[in-house]
Amino acid sequence: LITLLTDFGIRDPSAAICHGVIVSIAPHAEIVDISHEVRKYAIRDGALLLWCALPYMPIGIHVAVIDPGVGTARRPIAVLAARGDVLIGPDNGLLMPGADRLGGIVAARLIENRELWLPIVTSSFHGRDIFSPVAAHLAAGTDLATVGPQIEQASLVPLSVLAARVGDGVLETQIVYVDTFGNVKLGALTSDLVGAVGRLADGMPLSLQLSGRRRLDVPWATTFGSVAPGAPLVYEDSYGRLCLADNQGDIATRLGLGDGEPVTIRRA
Amino acid sequence: LITLLTDFGIRDPSAAICHGVIVSIAPHAEIVDISHEVRKYAIRDGALLLWCALPYMPIGIHVAVIDPGVGTARRPIAVLAARGDVLIGPDNGLLMPGADRLGGIVAARLIENRELWLPIVTSSFHGRDIFSPVAAHLAAGTDLATVGPQIEQASLVPLSVLAARVGDGVLETQIVYVDTFGNVKLGALTSDLVGAVGRLADGMPLSLQLSGRRRLDVPWATTFGSVAPGAPLVYEDSYGRLCLADNQGDIATRLGLGDGEPVTIRRA
Amino acid sequence: LITLLTDFGIRDPSAAICHGVIVSIAPHAEIVDISHEVRKYAIRDGALLLWCALPYMPIGIHVAVIDPGVGTARRPIAVLAARGDVLIGPDNGLLMPGADRLGGIVAARLIENRELWLPIVTSSFHGRDIFSPVAAHLAAGTDLATVGPQIEQASLVPLSVLAARVGDGVLETQIVYVDTFGNVKLGALTSDLVGAVGRLADGMPLSLQLSGRRRLDVPWATTFGSVAPGAPLVYEDSYGRLCLADNQGDIATRLGLGDGEPVTIRRA
Repeated sequence: LITLLTDFGIRDPSAAICHGVIVSIAPHAEIVDISHEVRKYAIRDGALLLWCALPYMPIGIHVAVIDPGVGTARRPIAVLAARGDVLIGPDNGLLMPGADRLGGIVAARLIENRELWLPIVTSSFHGRDIFSPVAAHLAAGTDLATVGPQIEQASLVPLSVLAARVGDGVLETQIVYVDTFGNVKLGALTSDLVGAVGRLADGMPLSLQLSGRRRLDVPWATTFGSVAPGAPLVYEDSYGRLCLADNQGDIATRLGLGDGEPVTIRRA
Repeated sequence: LITLLTDFGIRDPSAAICHGVIVSIAPHAEIVDISHEVRKYAIRDGALLLWCALPYMPIGIHVAVIDPGVGTARRPIAVLAARGDVLIGPDNGLLMPGADRLGGIVAARLIENRELWLPIVTSSFHGRDIFSPVAAHLAAGTDLATVGPQIEQASLVPLSVLAARVGDGVLETQIVYVDTFGNVKLGALTSDLVGAVGRLADGMPLSLQLSGRRRLDVPWATTFGSVAPGAPLVYEDSYGRLCLADNQGDIATRLGLGDGEPVTIRRA
Repeated sequence: LITLLTDFGIRDPSAAICHGVIVSIAPHAEIVDISHEVRKYAIRDGALLLWCALPYMPIGIHVAVIDPGVGTARRPIAVLAARGDVLIGPDNGLLMPGADRLGGIVAARLIENRELWLPIVTSSFHGRDIFSPVAAHLAAGTDLATVGPQIEQASLVPLSVLAARVGDGVLETQIVYVDTFGNVKLGALTSDLVGAVGRLADGMPLSLQLSGRRRLDVPWATTFGSVAPGAPLVYEDSYGRLCLADNQGDIATRLGLGDGEPVTIRRA
């Protein structure tokens, strides 16, 4: 199994070309497209989606390409996760949170063996020329050691998709992703909020401070249906993160919320 | 074969996660994505797409998740259609028109057996936690009876994707879907229009009354090419429905038409 | 292997229905979706995407449907390319550039044998009723000669995705496609520019003339990273074409550039 995540966009043929390259080398590979509509150049968005998705994928080869540095000196890497998966992509942090969720990195290699690449390598499409063919060769049985020399794990570019400071009665975090429903993902886990304000109960009022001195009173809710349609709630999303949403609505559009906005949560 | 239809959006990883869950349980399942871009929470839109698509799918398991009531008391159900397909999703009407097109429902079961679910079930992602794993187990050979107890068909939430009143010389219907070309699907079949105004012939003038006293003179046409590029036509779409379109244009945008708009058709 | 390229849009079920039709006839066919988000009715856009994608696909059957003339007298065709692929679609030029890239057309046939079509053929969805089932039958082993009589290659509607006039010190071309990054693809190859202005070197200044007397000084660059983030560059894209872009930006939106815009390039 090979999964693909990119910011290539589904109108353009780039993602399909990666499929073509893969099935040309490994005709029996099964491919799951995680997303090709990641915001352009948004490494953290891509890292977040991998963090969400990889635990639900079978053990396999995971190719991720959000690569603003394509054609520069940034390294192409392959990392082996404890669960047995191999993650392939640029060394810009993109692969790190997903690898963490698969038990952490147990080995990292520089992708350097040109015998596993396409014969012609361009400066702008390493997804096609390097990452996909390497993934396909691994799926077809090539040993990971063949891709290139081992590199220090400490040398890999780090990245975190969580951002939470647990204080006494207060949790400071920020918006890390707005999904297609307009639900607002925060960079904190439910356990962070419990650490800050104590035990949570359905309907418990919380006070959220946003940028520009905006304040919002929103209940903690165990499910969307706990509040009326259109009403806001803070809840634990299906990945254990804190999330701010309107029941059957789009709170991000309603309140003009976006990535990076700081959010401070207290008991109301 | 398993098909998937959701409003999850293709940017987010949710639909891919359903793939991952399915192939983890049933590695040999073939998956066809009917759509993951159904308008958010639009149960009737999803029902319409199933109504269109399912007759062209091989007999299989069809998972549909447009589920504004996720986490509430709405029932997760599996229904067996006369053709031999199993439809899986929330009991909110979504599955009903598609099941009709497959010969009607011959049995319905409550999805209740937690052994077929993921070990942890969240309140907001039953597509991943309940519907996909149940579908995968069925595809892998588990008997439908295992999912849970039989329930009364009469107890299922009804839904119709057609809305037509055939009068003497007049057909009253409404817009039920605007497709990505901007073509406007009406909730009536060609046979309804024939019942109202008699036999149709290429070029026959029709008079359409829309909301706000707007009137439109549009010919009946057997094909787009019967009218000039940019000109409107009423025609039978490839599913037998009445449809209003501009040849090579986008009539919905041009006239500001949307779902639910009443449309009355007479002979001009 | 069967590939699909259409302007059907991914919200609507049409592309999925083609999958369903294909796997009903050829259960073991592997399907790669090149794109279903081609701009509506944009035959040249679709032709360009095939031109890019087909060389990276395994030898197979390639179905393309951008078909503003559906239901009129335009011919449904199947062409055999020198590489061994069969391209299937309407005779409106869509298939020509892709076939060129696969070595050129060695035979062309009119799709006429109704035994390979769906039993009911509508006037608006030949992708489902004609092209997909014919492709599936071919994938399942039916001989190409069965689809219908041979036709003259000279009778096929021509189409070119390149548009370049190489002068002495000047290259006249035009914008042929804007990709999802906002990168602007020109209808000329790097060899055309070399023919006009001589040998290129990283950082060499070029002068671009756009419509409305707009002039742009942009360097030739061998990779995005040769210029600062946000800065423009002219480079060879991964298919050998000239391309105008902002490093990590969207030049098409910044400068309001679109299809068909004339572009003249000189040494600055």
